[in-house]
Amino acid sequence: MISRASTKFIKSLQLKKYRKTEQLFVVEGGKSVLEVLGSTFNVKSVVATERFFASNREVLQGKEVSFVSEKELTGLGSYKTNNAALAVVHMKPNSPVGSNEGWLLGLDGVNDPGNLGTILRIADWYGINRIVASKETADFYNPKVVASSKGSFCRVNVYYTDLEAFIKSLDIPVYGAFMEGDDVHKRTFEEKGLLVLGNEANGISEEVSAIIRKKITIPRYGQAESLNVAMATAIICDNIFRGK
Amino acid sequence: MISRASTKFIKSLQLKKYRKTEQLFVVEGGKSVLEVLGSTFNVKSVVATERFFASNREVLQGKEVSFVSEKELTGLGSYKTNNAALAVVHMKPNSPVGSNEGWLLGLDGVNDPGNLGTILRIADWYGINRIVASKETADFYNPKVVASSKGSFCRVNVYYTDLEAFIKSLDIPVYGAFMEGDDVHKRTFEEKGLLVLGNEANGISEEVSAIIRKKITIPRYGQAESLNVAMATAIICDNIFRGK
Repeated sequence: MISRASTKFIKSLQLKKYRKTEQLFVVEGGKSVLEVLGSTFNVKSVVATERFFASNREVLQGKEVSFVSEKELTGLGSYKTNNAALAVVHMKPNSPVGSNEGWLLGLDGVNDPGNLGTILRIADWYGINRIVASKETADFYNPKVVASSKGSFCRVNVYYTDLEAFIKSLDIPVYGAFMEGDDVHKRTFEEKGLLVLGNEANGISEEVSAIIRKKITIPRYGQAESLNVAMATAIICDNIFRGK
Repeated sequence: MISRASTKFIKSLQLKKYRKTEQLFVVEGGKSVLEVLGSTFNVKSVVATERFFASNREVLQGKEVSFVSEKELTGLGSYKTNNAALAVVHMKPNSPVGSNEGWLLGLDGVNDPGNLGTILRIADWYGINRIVASKETADFYNPKVVASSKGSFCRVNVYYTDLEAFIKSLDIPVYGAFMEGDDVHKRTFEEKGLLVLGNEANGISEEVSAIIRKKITIPRYGQAESLNVAMATAIICDNIFRGK
């Protein structure tokens, strides 16, 4: 059992304002909790079922662990069910990311937490571990982002900043995904660069569009009006990395 | 205003068993309602705000339309908000799809309605309008499938059948997405074929795996454990169609 105060505290971390004040966030589910315990994140405490603890004694050694029933555990988080564990984890500082090797993603107002989480997973699949996001982009520490990243939040850093100013400071090729642009199938991509993706409804903002010289598009063979931003990210990353 | 009986009836269509009995399903949101009105689906009735009706008199001509407030409209469906319209639409018969030209998708137990809807959208983007699905696959008429397809449900047909028997009956190349298979970047694809995708947790079933000779995989450059089935569909379709 955990105290009513702890319950209230953990639940408060569902909201950005409390995460910001406390500089803490929540990771739910056995698999993600094990991933975060093995990552560079600093885990403050774990709430677990006795069964989860029994099967993972070693990795939990030295950690502050509270025991709860599955029902209590589920009640603490945002998942429909959780029969394993939940971790309270220290946020990392919003540190600038380097651009002198490999590829980065730039997110210009990707609003939906599920899309951001899926983009983290795609980035991680393609070995991209640095993302630069405009301040309007969904919060990296939102429980839906963490959940839909399927553990990739442990390996991909997101730096929130003024995206326009960041792009202006770069001396690597900058690509952007647009509805009208050069056919992504006909391009060969450099060894390093930045790929910018835009907002779900409005695409890349005018200010950022104005400074992107390499506009690319995914050719359409049928009739769907558009592709979701996460799908576009997956397809363009696959085009960038093929042959590499 | 609409009657209490109509409200109850429309709400019942959120559940598969009532959809099956009535052979009707619900389409929500102004954009999707306009798409379905312009499609080969037979629309039984429309529930709309007066404003939506006023802006779309022409397409609604001859249709049975009931007027409601935005609040009432939202209460009828599954969306968080709906300020435009909702349509009650006749289901189409579960008709076999032909395989003598172009590409088809095969879905072996794709469970999540959001994934199925996203796959419809991807298929539609690449001009694939025929999908064959195992009976364990999510229901095409589920409101989440319709919503996440963003109108593509109007252009892509899904035929539910015994997928294994269907594949055995084919004389076109059959590809399957596996974690271990030939590199999709190193393949050139035929002008027609079937691409099979599996269940979110377990992939393609053993029985279906056993009869797929062309096993393909998306090369991984980083550390994510897997890609979501809709992302994999998008990437493989892009590889199939590039250069076509």
